[in-house]
Amino acid sequence: MNIVLLHPGQMGVTIGQALLRSGHEVRWVAQGRSQQTRQRAHRSGFTETAELIEAFDGADAVVSVCPPSEAQSVMDQVLGCGYQGLYLDANAVAPETAQAMARKLGDRYIDGGIIGPPAQTAGSTRLYLSGSGADAALKWFDDDILGVVTIGSDASAASSLKMCYAAYTKGSSALLLAVRALACSLNVEDALLNEWSLSQAGLETRAKATARGTAAKAWRFSGEMAEIATTFAGAGLPNGFHLAAREIYDRMGPLKDSADADLELVMNAILQTPGTADS
Amino acid sequence: MNIVLLHPGQMGVTIGQALLRSGHEVRWVAQGRSQQTRQRAHRSGFTETAELIEAFDGADAVVSVCPPSEAQSVMDQVLGCGYQGLYLDANAVAPETAQAMARKLGDRYIDGGIIGPPAQTAGSTRLYLSGSGADAALKWFDDDILGVVTIGSDASAASSLKMCYAAYTKGSSALLLAVRALACSLNVEDALLNEWSLSQAGLETRAKATARGTAAKAWRFSGEMAEIATTFAGAGLPNGFHLAAREIYDRMGPLKDSADADLELVMNAILQTPGTADS
Repeated sequence: MNIVLLHPGQMGVTIGQALLRSGHEVRWVAQGRSQQTRQRAHRSGFTETAELIEAFDGADAVVSVCPPSEAQSVMDQVLGCGYQGLYLDANAVAPETAQAMARKLGDRYIDGGIIGPPAQTAGSTRLYLSGSGADAALKWFDDDILGVVTIGSDASAASSLKMCYAAYTKGSSALLLAVRALACSLNVEDALLNEWSLSQAGLETRAKATARGTAAKAWRFSGEMAEIATTFAGAGLPNGFHLAAREIYDRMGPLKDSADADLELVMNAILQTPGTADS
Repeated sequence: MNIVLLHPGQMGVTIGQALLRSGHEVRWVAQGRSQQTRQRAHRSGFTETAELIEAFDGADAVVSVCPPSEAQSVMDQVLGCGYQGLYLDANAVAPETAQAMARKLGDRYIDGGIIGPPAQTAGSTRLYLSGSGADAALKWFDDDILGVVTIGSDASAASSLKMCYAAYTKGSSALLLAVRALACSLNVEDALLNEWSLSQAGLETRAKATARGTAAKAWRFSGEMAEIATTFAGAGLPNGFHLAAREIYDRMGPLKDSADADLELVMNAILQTPGTADS
């Protein structure tokens, strides 16, 4: 098959590599992409096309892996090119967003949700699929590294699953960093760490690891937190956890791509970046 | 010493027992208290006084252990009786609330924060003390079960510590229950539990234990969540985590004092109780 990957970012590239290992040609579109993305795509052995419309000539499927806030506009661009084939959206979007895309694409829409880091070792990462075309899309993959799992015919189940999963992992991480920042601001850090050492074993270590692990990439969690907040509101549940989490990650934005940000730098960013503080 | 305990609720009674074991007389005030509280106080060997004003005759100190939303009014009632001695507020209040009480009481105010369950076994529970009278109050206690720890002369440090501690424990518990409810609402529970079993070991078990452990007492977390939200806002941090947590615990209110509420009943309460859903 010829599969168009939009776009080969850090996560997208590992989905493309899984398709390549499964025996397909993987095309990518150079227009508007960074030099970093170009290098990644070339190293991976993907086929470059200059513009979007070129990529669809003879293409069998499109796989979208992009920031959640761009998921719908990427799809609109693809449809604008007259593309008529299957479309897998693997982005971290609210089920409402997935349903909106499904309404435009009908049976050609396949819902996807990626859980885990960019897939480099077996067992670390799963691509969940749902919708009427999920079983067909499952057959695209024959790979030992990326796990691919179908979870039914609901056109937004994979997105729902991703929202629920990230709601706890990224939500509790943001809460933990916010609490550490609060303790810092109130000058009770030592007392808190001492109490944690008595009654919350591992939490101090988790806070440090979370700071190091999220600092460089927090800037791109904002859209995902907004989608999760939409998901909670859509289910009649309070959306405040993830509006607050978005605020925390937004404040960490200045640490984008920093290689050595630690808890102290994260605390400074959270406490010093002006924010609305009422989300 | 003669120490007035306001009031011998489930937590208060264990603080009173620690004072009793330390050799003091512990008085309580029957007016307006439930039959349950009366039984608890009598079983503990506290001295009953009928009305508030009687209790202060010859009293050396007052210890307040009450719902956070009542902390200031309890203090106002005590001052209204002309009481002139030391006053330990051990409630889960924002540092702003503690400072407001300290402004009225001056050096007679001692800030307290209780971390852990009602103290029945050594090492489970600590009463933190701060403020200019913290060292004096530390000497009231000579007990093997309740840990008592001073953390400096700041008139709100103990409250600050309590806020930070509960912000993560009760905040992450509310988040976890909210996520389970979301998955239930979106019909992706099985898929979420399966993914958790692969990549978030222990989370399913924690969700079940959290539901059982908080169902009966969630109704009294509301005021504490509001105080934590105030604390975050006061530090220029987003208050949405705990406004949302308050909403979740409020919805669990109908499970008050239920002995056998499990995850399923908690999910029903969270999903069926009408709420504002925009906190």
